[in-house]
Amino acid sequence: MADGGKRDTYTPESLLAVAVEVFIERGYDGTSMEHLSKAAGISKSSIYHHVRGKEELLHRAVSRALDGLFGVLEEPGACEGRAVDRLEYVTRRSTEVLTADLPYVTLLLRVRGNTATERWAMERRREFDQRVAELLKQAAADGDIRADVDPKLATRLLFGMINSVAEWYRPQARGGHHGAEVADAVVRMAFAGLRT
Amino acid sequence: MADGGKRDTYTPESLLAVAVEVFIERGYDGTSMEHLSKAAGISKSSIYHHVRGKEELLHRAVSRALDGLFGVLEEPGACEGRAVDRLEYVTRRSTEVLTADLPYVTLLLRVRGNTATERWAMERRREFDQRVAELLKQAAADGDIRADVDPKLATRLLFGMINSVAEWYRPQARGGHHGAEVADAVVRMAFAGLRT
Repeated sequence: MADGGKRDTYTPESLLAVAVEVFIERGYDGTSMEHLSKAAGISKSSIYHHVRGKEELLHRAVSRALDGLFGVLEEPGACEGRAVDRLEYVTRRSTEVLTADLPYVTLLLRVRGNTATERWAMERRREFDQRVAELLKQAAADGDIRADVDPKLATRLLFGMINSVAEWYRPQARGGHHGAEVADAVVRMAFAGLRT
Repeated sequence: MADGGKRDTYTPESLLAVAVEVFIERGYDGTSMEHLSKAAGISKSSIYHHVRGKEELLHRAVSRALDGLFGVLEEPGACEGRAVDRLEYVTRRSTEVLTADLPYVTLLLRVRGNTATERWAMERRREFDQRVAELLKQAAADGDIRADVDPKLATRLLFGMINSVAEWYRPQARGGHHGAEVADAVVRMAFAGLRT
């Protein structure tokens, strides 16, 4: 298709969605502007009309995931009440953000690398994990979390369970679960356990 | 170093350990015999002295992980008693196998691809997951697992938590956890929950 044919159908938002899929499939390092151009079906110069380059696309994509996750921490359920209840709230809502913004959060979870944007994303992700770790530590200090699991280990396993959802969750899957069902299951399993 | 210099210091076992590290770092697809030769510090012909090629190394590596995991299913704790107790046993022992054979299980978890060995490994891994899923389903039918979490979802989250350990567990880490401590934490969190 000629360059001008599709250019006007792209918005920064739809170009971003295509770029995120390519980044996830090929890895950010392994993605060239040529790959993005082919996947979007527009010329490289058309892409440069929207963004300065692939790093800006990465920045926008991981920002979306990070804004969603940090936004959760500002919600009343994450700020008021006992630490264990706030932790449960953040667990539920983080899982919902992951299922709602699946490709963006998946990309954030996979970012490893040496560009400034990748380092920034990893640092922000660590900050988020740290905020949740502090909630869990406070809940343990309150005596609301079992004493026979090390809080650091519990934090890792909690994130392990939440983040693993990105490996298999597909919102379009027929007969699949809704994000809220998955979040419910994560909360029940992590906080109350599987045994009756 | 000249070809003959190190050849005799390599055993199939030590060559395998090097290959697994390279497969994890570069991906199996992205690894050439040249990469393996450089990492091992021996010539390609020396490697061919031990194995037919990189696919044989992959086969040996994932076999080791699979033998460990399927071995758990043969242990008395996995075969006798109520399904929920067998499930708990398998959860604990799978986590221990993961921490004990960390690089091999990590490689197994990352295998995706189109060679016969990769497809075989993925199929065997699915078989293992299926065996555990059946245990969980039986435990639910026994009424020993909470009814408000779908068994399929619970299986996915349980594996998600166990397998996430491969992302951060390092046996040599100072002040780090032992495999048995991690397995304890996984079992407590998954079966009894974090809340007191």
